[in-house]
Amino acid sequence: MRVRFDKNAANFLNEENIHINNSIEFKGKWKTVFKNDNKIYLEIGMGKGDFLVGMAKKYPDVNFIGIERNVTILAKACKKILNENLTNVRIISDDANILNEIFEKNEIDKIFLNFSDPWPKSKHAKRRLTYSSFLNIYDEILKNDGLIEFKTDNQLLFEFTIQEVNNTGRKIEYISLDLHSTDCKDNIMTEYEEKFSKKGNRIYKLIWNNINNK
Amino acid sequence: MRVRFDKNAANFLNEENIHINNSIEFKGKWKTVFKNDNKIYLEIGMGKGDFLVGMAKKYPDVNFIGIERNVTILAKACKKILNENLTNVRIISDDANILNEIFEKNEIDKIFLNFSDPWPKSKHAKRRLTYSSFLNIYDEILKNDGLIEFKTDNQLLFEFTIQEVNNTGRKIEYISLDLHSTDCKDNIMTEYEEKFSKKGNRIYKLIWNNINNK
Repeated sequence: MRVRFDKNAANFLNEENIHINNSIEFKGKWKTVFKNDNKIYLEIGMGKGDFLVGMAKKYPDVNFIGIERNVTILAKACKKILNENLTNVRIISDDANILNEIFEKNEIDKIFLNFSDPWPKSKHAKRRLTYSSFLNIYDEILKNDGLIEFKTDNQLLFEFTIQEVNNTGRKIEYISLDLHSTDCKDNIMTEYEEKFSKKGNRIYKLIWNNINNK
Repeated sequence: MRVRFDKNAANFLNEENIHINNSIEFKGKWKTVFKNDNKIYLEIGMGKGDFLVGMAKKYPDVNFIGIERNVTILAKACKKILNENLTNVRIISDDANILNEIFEKNEIDKIFLNFSDPWPKSKHAKRRLTYSSFLNIYDEILKNDGLIEFKTDNQLLFEFTIQEVNNTGRKIEYISLDLHSTDCKDNIMTEYEEKFSKKGNRIYKLIWNNINNK
């Protein structure tokens, strides 16, 4: 989805404490940002933040970090988080390919990827957030027994992700080819998920293990 | 599907040359049955034989063996094969768990599993034809770079199969979550596939590698 650039968004984010501008400076020190020893869960490509807000409200004893490179969208998410007075959420506006510059090895307890851009053309496969080079970066910052949870309604991206996870020797922990038809009462929906599942689209879910957990 | 037992089916099969009664005696010698050096493809749970007949007609330079333990159904398949005057097909009425008594190591070039019984209850998981113990038997008789091609319309069986193939370290070569929506002009349909896809059911397909091909 293309979003019109909002010139005030960047300024707004700069002034908010929950948005961390100098993310790289906190590498290895993210627990000091939250001032506690709780686990840290990361959502990559958080969009407008419905999932992150839902999770942060449901699990107050977990710290959540959302990353989204589109600052206009991130500003919308920021407002939602402020409205909820959540203290266990921080957001950053960086690219997923520098995650290992932002987080130390083993610093993250769990990673979520929700409705990532499918980049349907083969020549763009390397840009998909489940391409093997990204999977390697995630495992670097994820603790050894950490999990990656992935949801999408895009059939081709899901097929690609299964093959990428399998062919790199990672272990699939859970798979659903129709999440909403199964018992998923713990599922927190994203904006996309709500919209697309109402249209009758299937929601796919895959959970896999850090490759170092063998 | 339950099929009424036809007491004449066994007698009929015994008299037909394309049905091999004493299958165990041909272990390591199946090429002598076909009197040529062509590749041998095996369909496990061949049902009424539409797939096997379609494949045998399309690939006259490949030998096909179908296995089906229900003799009443096998007799129906036998009649179809006789009607087509196919010389590159043989059928056997054995259980899949003795395949390594019927075939020598590396004797089979490719294996097909189509619309296998899903055995939906967890306590029956070991009976599913994609349970790990069966995968091990298939790899024993399959040549080292041989592939296993699996189709089903059953979501739970497909999810189970992906996990079983992945968790045992096998490599997924191809996956489709909606075979008929993609370019599949080479696809030969089974009786079930024709019936269920007309009802609007999705057909899933997975191809994986012999575990020894690393």
